[in-house]
Amino acid sequence: MTLPEKVAQLYGVWVGASADGGEVAPYQHEMEEPVDLDALLPTGLGQLTRPFGTAPVDPALGALSLLRTQQRIAGTNRFGIPALAHEECLAGFATWGATAYPVPLSWGATFDPALIRRMATAIGVDLHRLGVHQGLAPVLDVVRDARWGRVEETVGEDPYLVGTVATAYIQGLESAGVVATLKHFVGYSASRAGRNHAPVGMGPRERADVMLPPFEMAVRESGVRSVMHAYTDTDGMPSAADEQLLTGLLRETWGFTGTVVADYFGIAFLHTLHGVAGSWGEAAGVALAAGVDVELPTVKTFGEPLRAALAAGTVPETLIDRALRRVLLQKAQLGLLDAGWSPVPPALDGVELDDPAAVRGSVDLDPPANRALARQVAEEAVVLLRNADVLPLAAPARIAVVGPQAENALSVLGCYSFPVHVGAKHPEVPLGIELPTLVAALRAEFPASEVVVAAGAGVDGPETDGFAAAAEVARGADVVIAALGDRAGLFGRGTSGEGCDAESLALPGVQQQLLDALLDTGTPVIVTMIAGRPYALGRAIDEAAAIVQSFFPGEEGPAAIAGVLSGRVEPQGRLPIGVPRRPGGQPGTYLTARLGQLSDVSNVDPTPAYGFGHGLSYTRFDWSALTVEQRVAQTDGELRLSFTLRNTGERWGSEVVQLYAHDPVASVVQPVQRLIGYQRVRLDPGAACRIELTVPADLFSFTGKDGRRIVEPGELELRLAASSTDARLVAPVELRGPVRYVDHTRRLHPEFTATPVEG
Amino acid sequence: MTLPEKVAQLYGVWVGASADGGEVAPYQHEMEEPVDLDALLPTGLGQLTRPFGTAPVDPALGALSLLRTQQRIAGTNRFGIPALAHEECLAGFATWGATAYPVPLSWGATFDPALIRRMATAIGVDLHRLGVHQGLAPVLDVVRDARWGRVEETVGEDPYLVGTVATAYIQGLESAGVVATLKHFVGYSASRAGRNHAPVGMGPRERADVMLPPFEMAVRESGVRSVMHAYTDTDGMPSAADEQLLTGLLRETWGFTGTVVADYFGIAFLHTLHGVAGSWGEAAGVALAAGVDVELPTVKTFGEPLRAALAAGTVPETLIDRALRRVLLQKAQLGLLDAGWSPVPPALDGVELDDPAAVRGSVDLDPPANRALARQVAEEAVVLLRNADVLPLAAPARIAVVGPQAENALSVLGCYSFPVHVGAKHPEVPLGIELPTLVAALRAEFPASEVVVAAGAGVDGPETDGFAAAAEVARGADVVIAALGDRAGLFGRGTSGEGCDAESLALPGVQQQLLDALLDTGTPVIVTMIAGRPYALGRAIDEAAAIVQSFFPGEEGPAAIAGVLSGRVEPQGRLPIGVPRRPGGQPGTYLTARLGQLSDVSNVDPTPAYGFGHGLSYTRFDWSALTVEQRVAQTDGELRLSFTLRNTGERWGSEVVQLYAHDPVASVVQPVQRLIGYQRVRLDPGAACRIELTVPADLFSFTGKDGRRIVEPGELELRLAASSTDARLVAPVELRGPVRYVDHTRRLHPEFTATPVEG
Repeated sequence: MTLPEKVAQLYGVWVGASADGGEVAPYQHEMEEPVDLDALLPTGLGQLTRPFGTAPVDPALGALSLLRTQQRIAGTNRFGIPALAHEECLAGFATWGATAYPVPLSWGATFDPALIRRMATAIGVDLHRLGVHQGLAPVLDVVRDARWGRVEETVGEDPYLVGTVATAYIQGLESAGVVATLKHFVGYSASRAGRNHAPVGMGPRERADVMLPPFEMAVRESGVRSVMHAYTDTDGMPSAADEQLLTGLLRETWGFTGTVVADYFGIAFLHTLHGVAGSWGEAAGVALAAGVDVELPTVKTFGEPLRAALAAGTVPETLIDRALRRVLLQKAQLGLLDAGWSPVPPALDGVELDDPAAVRGSVDLDPPANRALARQVAEEAVVLLRNADVLPLAAPARIAVVGPQAENALSVLGCYSFPVHVGAKHPEVPLGIELPTLVAALRAEFPASEVVVAAGAGVDGPETDGFAAAAEVARGADVVIAALGDRAGLFGRGTSGEGCDAESLALPGVQQQLLDALLDTGTPVIVTMIAGRPYALGRAIDEAAAIVQSFFPGEEGPAAIAGVLSGRVEPQGRLPIGVPRRPGGQPGTYLTARLGQLSDVSNVDPTPAYGFGHGLSYTRFDWSALTVEQRVAQTDGELRLSFTLRNTGERWGSEVVQLYAHDPVASVVQPVQRLIGYQRVRLDPGAACRIELTVPADLFSFTGKDGRRIVEPGELELRLAASSTDARLVAPVELRGPVRYVDHTRRLHPEFTATPVEG
Repeated sequence: MTLPEKVAQLYGVWVGASADGGEVAPYQHEMEEPVDLDALLPTGLGQLTRPFGTAPVDPALGALSLLRTQQRIAGTNRFGIPALAHEECLAGFATWGATAYPVPLSWGATFDPALIRRMATAIGVDLHRLGVHQGLAPVLDVVRDARWGRVEETVGEDPYLVGTVATAYIQGLESAGVVATLKHFVGYSASRAGRNHAPVGMGPRERADVMLPPFEMAVRESGVRSVMHAYTDTDGMPSAADEQLLTGLLRETWGFTGTVVADYFGIAFLHTLHGVAGSWGEAAGVALAAGVDVELPTVKTFGEPLRAALAAGTVPETLIDRALRRVLLQKAQLGLLDAGWSPVPPALDGVELDDPAAVRGSVDLDPPANRALARQVAEEAVVLLRNADVLPLAAPARIAVVGPQAENALSVLGCYSFPVHVGAKHPEVPLGIELPTLVAALRAEFPASEVVVAAGAGVDGPETDGFAAAAEVARGADVVIAALGDRAGLFGRGTSGEGCDAESLALPGVQQQLLDALLDTGTPVIVTMIAGRPYALGRAIDEAAAIVQSFFPGEEGPAAIAGVLSGRVEPQGRLPIGVPRRPGGQPGTYLTARLGQLSDVSNVDPTPAYGFGHGLSYTRFDWSALTVEQRVAQTDGELRLSFTLRNTGERWGSEVVQLYAHDPVASVVQPVQRLIGYQRVRLDPGAACRIELTVPADLFSFTGKDGRRIVEPGELELRLAASSTDARLVAPVELRGPVRYVDHTRRLHPEFTATPVEG
């Protein structure tokens, strides 16, 4: 290959599918100059960016458009190499008419990786059958500041939960033949003050012990084939320029062999925003040297600036060859270099392609099977935070539904859903999926009840005109459902989502005042949060009849919430991130040391209202008969314990057994506790099981004084807990022997076995 | 010396002076067991903790009490060694009746190190003449999160300003023969979420480039003889356990030879809170090994636990000897080991000591000279933020003064002032100093005006009962002075001060609502902030007639503020920390990179209302005729430039010439700009001077990729500015040559010369 042909494999072009099945058109982003496909294609093209997620197009016609473009690409370059097409797919295939699944924060709330694997498989199958090769998901950022707008895109505040759930998602996506993309590697969620893109001030130990573990787990256990760098710098080093991170750690230590792709415009940022490169060409060289292989979303620094730098010898050709090898290897793995490669995606196989009218509508991306899966995830993710004996709701005569989420169909969608991300720019186009409102779901759930409705207030904005009418409606009802939360949006258009960071964790707009007004009516108030992050709820913590938390639950969310309220659905979710008591105090998570949890040395008490892992059930579980079979182990050994879990209530239910490590004395400061394992256990009323755990000493490892990961001997505790604030059984254990250095081959999980027991 | 005698030199005992001149009594702190002086003294005693600052005692009698105790200590141990007495002295000698100077944030606002040196000399003289050997000041923490309660104790958000002003303070204190104490070494101000004691998540580069420089400057330039470790851990490593910090950097690299003392209870925290030691004895060993020499405030881990650890051999005696050598060397320097040492402090020299009645009242710690100095600092520190042509106030017929600070005499004092720190526990004891209120000062300043007053609201608390009366008072006046701000206090008793952290930078309590109500009256509102931190001021930023910011200005503060309002005093202060536009967005300072300042990628715009260095004058300055005599230098060379500064107004005035470095392209991400020099210049109306600057390349140095400090070649900018948001002259410059490693001998300052020019 010539040098221009090599370089051409290392960038994408942002395109939009044609609405009538013609070729894609270059999408001109406001940040970039126009792209001339005719000029580019003779040397080939590495990637096609967002062929489905740029404009609302019938998916079958979008696939046809992509097919025609791939034919042209493959037909234009000397080697017949098609482009790799990538798309967003965080909470479902980000295209018109595709299933809108719950957002990742809801995945975290399920504590059910197997379910998330099934969901991701379904997403992957849909991507694959339309000709998409790579999905830009999942997000493995661990929440450090809940004000960050992208909290909704994360799995939560605990690295183990993030790692296990995200790994399951990747396994699902990859099982469908789609390249998953770990993002954002690494640090983005710790942007200062939760402000999008702001620098990350984090030390190497926090990075190693909190931010990196989910990525390491995914690389080791999921077969993931792509990684996206983070926009941010950490302590002055931009991720896209960090060779120790992208090459040293990721490839040489962890053994990753796939591609590293740029976050959109991220390589250009090295010049314009980070200031670690003095020109576009220099930025390209810095990124390539660090280990970034592909520029996205479109060609900028990897175009003329990189070619000039290569010609001038300031960027060595060996860096091009290194990236090219990875890109072509991946294309080969995907079959794109096969002699028999066909541009026709599975969905169009056998369809008469010359008749767009026949193609249109031939693909259903939101079939009943998808909706059932979306429903199951939504149901398992609803978290019952508080229940003052009001739930399940015995059919009330009159239900008031008050709040901005009551009749807002879009309230259940996150920022990366197609209707929010792209559809918002095309209000004339129908949504493409059925999105029932919460009110509609409640009417269906409680057919014998009268359901009266008042918005009361908007999601944001200062208007309180609707308060009086809302209070009136509430006073006339047996129960009031306060439907509160966020509006997802991009860059200032929402209260949650990319670029929609919060100043504090106070409810947006005047929702707290509205809630207080409802509480003042005396009618029992059930708070129903449909949001992208946790919020402080003020008086409601003590005064609400119940609080139900849902994190953008997707298209089946309203029915799931309604089902929990009626008792048709068992509440099974657990908080993937704590709900604060006060709006201030950020950044902060449950993963902090004793000095971060003291309530008597500061005006600002960090104690959460509901801690990580919290979630109530309609039944009761008894934890008993703890036996520690192996209380002492060597630093390379394993501990064993068992206990009995019994459903002592009247209904079936599902407990999440959470295993926390507590290390009271260590060579460096440790969090008070951290999650090292969990297991969801379903039990019929009266049923019990004996749960045995084997806990490798490796799980107590942390980054020691010298920056290497160690297991130290000492007295420790294993806490078997219903949440981070509700340890049920505590096992003192001990590790003995020398301090042991562990590496990336260490064990990452405990073993759980659950055996039914009699009586 | 026996081992118990050696160890006894390494701890203090917290004592309170006797009110009648008898010996001090051990002060029993709630965190500690009682101390038995009789049992301790035979082996000697290292320090006496806070003999003056523990209870309100006549200072002369306190000195007598200390004298008697020193006689007993020296007379009881085999070697006749007295204790070293230390006291707090942050904003003045923290004892009853002593001058209450402005807090450090006001020192920063003066940008006048020479003045602060004079103030500290006066403080040192007062300490010295009463028998105090060591003062626990100043605070060199650089503000990273303005929510932190101790912001009032800092010099601000810029390391160069903190370093220069604090160094001047130390020079003053040490010139009086008093040991100054650098604190808190290092990181405390970056406690997560601004919460007192919370862990610090900071990388080594930010620490090296932001937190350490003031300490390094002070060690090199002030002759400081003591350092106090910070309570916090940084990235998991507690400062008190950090040998690389306390020994490697401080002593081996910087050459510090004095003592390292514990922050109160900080060694015990290694066991109880940090969890890096499993016992008291282990905590003592960890601290000694790291380089802590003295346990304060009282004996805990260095008592029986340390002796037991020594006996068991788990702590080597060599560590005791190392600390002892430093302690005794300091006592020798102080003359405490001299054969002719006398326990009688200068203030009691010649006083008839056997007659307490004659002693009482014989020392005046708040004489007119002190008050004049306090006045000058207060005057120079008042910052005029906004002036919509209303100031100076032409004598109005009626002035309304509204707000919680109007008639609160304590409003001008910080948390470490004696009346707030200790006096609050003794409400029956008179203040001991004259503290005029703002209303009293305004009545004196405007004798022809009618001054009407309404509190309107408290500093905190939700009560709005007073709003109507306040608005009424405001409506009837020609101008309303809104007297708003903080109440200093300890651990929850204030809105500013140690343990009084804020959730956000919204005004405490209902003060913003009160301010809005005043703005609604239509009467011109002059906001007068008397506070410990900057606050967002909402609508007032655009609607107030004027805004005057004062940071706890001390006993002469009200007169200084009133003088600025009348025009008797020229406003000369500049912000040592920015005033935010919005209450959220913390942590954040002006020292951030481009990605931390973008306003279009987040809902939360970090642009301040008034940036670091801002402050208006009653006259005008013209900056002109920039000449760059040396535009290009080698990386070990120096740049030279000059310009003309002219007072083009009608009054004398004082400009602070601020020099900022801007480094657009560097190997690691740089702040957009940072202060590298400043000079206060006073000019009569019409007068001008030519200001020449010599800027060593060293000032562009930063911590490079490999963790070492470097000067890089490249195109740079020197910005001559009236504030961080108001560059008046910009000089493009260039450094050439190789990347140069610089070390702790690098130059730290530019040179300014100002030469009067004609016409």
